[in-house]
Amino acid sequence: MRDAYHEELNSIGTDLVDMAQLVSSAMRRATTALLDADLALAQGVIEGDEQVNALQHALENRAIDLLARQQPVATDLRIVVTSLRMSADLERSGDLAKHVAKLAQLRAPGRAIPDDLNDTIGEMGELAQRLMNQAADVLVSRDVDRALAMERDDDHMDTLHRTLFQHLLDKHWKHGVETAVDVTLAGRYYERFADHAVAVANRVVYLVTGEHADTLTPPPVIPAGNLP
Amino acid sequence: MRDAYHEELNSIGTDLVDMAQLVSSAMRRATTALLDADLALAQGVIEGDEQVNALQHALENRAIDLLARQQPVATDLRIVVTSLRMSADLERSGDLAKHVAKLAQLRAPGRAIPDDLNDTIGEMGELAQRLMNQAADVLVSRDVDRALAMERDDDHMDTLHRTLFQHLLDKHWKHGVETAVDVTLAGRYYERFADHAVAVANRVVYLVTGEHADTLTPPPVIPAGNLP
Repeated sequence: MRDAYHEELNSIGTDLVDMAQLVSSAMRRATTALLDADLALAQGVIEGDEQVNALQHALENRAIDLLARQQPVATDLRIVVTSLRMSADLERSGDLAKHVAKLAQLRAPGRAIPDDLNDTIGEMGELAQRLMNQAADVLVSRDVDRALAMERDDDHMDTLHRTLFQHLLDKHWKHGVETAVDVTLAGRYYERFADHAVAVANRVVYLVTGEHADTLTPPPVIPAGNLP
Repeated sequence: MRDAYHEELNSIGTDLVDMAQLVSSAMRRATTALLDADLALAQGVIEGDEQVNALQHALENRAIDLLARQQPVATDLRIVVTSLRMSADLERSGDLAKHVAKLAQLRAPGRAIPDDLNDTIGEMGELAQRLMNQAADVLVSRDVDRALAMERDDDHMDTLHRTLFQHLLDKHWKHGVETAVDVTLAGRYYERFADHAVAVANRVVYLVTGEHADTLTPPPVIPAGNLP
């Protein structure tokens, strides 16, 4: 009985990891679609989001079923409830990847992002995807230090977001209002996606330590030159 | 014992209604602050969001406590789990009202919204607030027809959002890129806020009927002239 129970609890964890990996891959492909104006790739991301939604639905039903039949308490109960919240973060992240893909479609065959912002948007996409992969790793490893270290990558996302705004608000901006609107929305999608990845990791921190991530100290950065 | 139990279940419902009313009021004040460049009003909205977060925190702890001690099953279990999701919608709505208030602060003493978009933004703010009040009503009344009728107001929000984009993308747009960025973000905040209000109402529909709102038919519109 208790074995089947822990199997069910584990399979909720596996579903979360699957969702995180799916949305990370979706955001990678959406970014490529956006930068290359690749319609087919964008369409694949949009259609693929159904799979994320289906996973969330299945996870939710499984969690409610487990609550009803096994009536977990204490830590296990917190795990189930927190998993429900994490699945909502991941489902929303899938939506955001889809929004990026739709932006790619909207302006095709043209490109929504002007050349001089390619690098910044490319970096935001890369960082968003990396943060989500890290969230997936933290779901598996429950490594608190690794989770807290994500704050740094998220700070870098904020820096990139500010860079985007500096370009937009520069008086020499020459790409017109439509592109400004697209860039504003794209920036917001990446920033929110990163927030959700960090939120997932922070919920793991809370499960493991009982403390909220913002009260804990992230591990020190070891400069590459000092590594043995 | 069971009386205390239903009292706890009810008080979770009351918390949700309180949250919905708080964020509805926050969005009303944030919109006024945005349109009037009223710094003090904006600051009040930003500080007031702490109260929404505290309510969500309390609700979450109460729900987990109730799951652990009372181990509800069937409908009651679904109510508790759904309440957790609704509280997340409402907490996020509070953030969005705060974002609108921050936009007001960012451009003060100037106004972020140009005169010719005052009406559209005003209407979006009014509609956002009304949708959230309707969500609060649906939480109390569990009135499925009323919940489904909200789709129409939400469609109107989409129309207003499109109007905003038409202005932005009009070749005669004369307010510059900074204002275009502000208007783009404001539009997105109102649209998302409305989505969360509708999501809350749709979750009530699912609790009451066991069906998802998008599979049900909204009640017919009765033109005002045909009323007795």
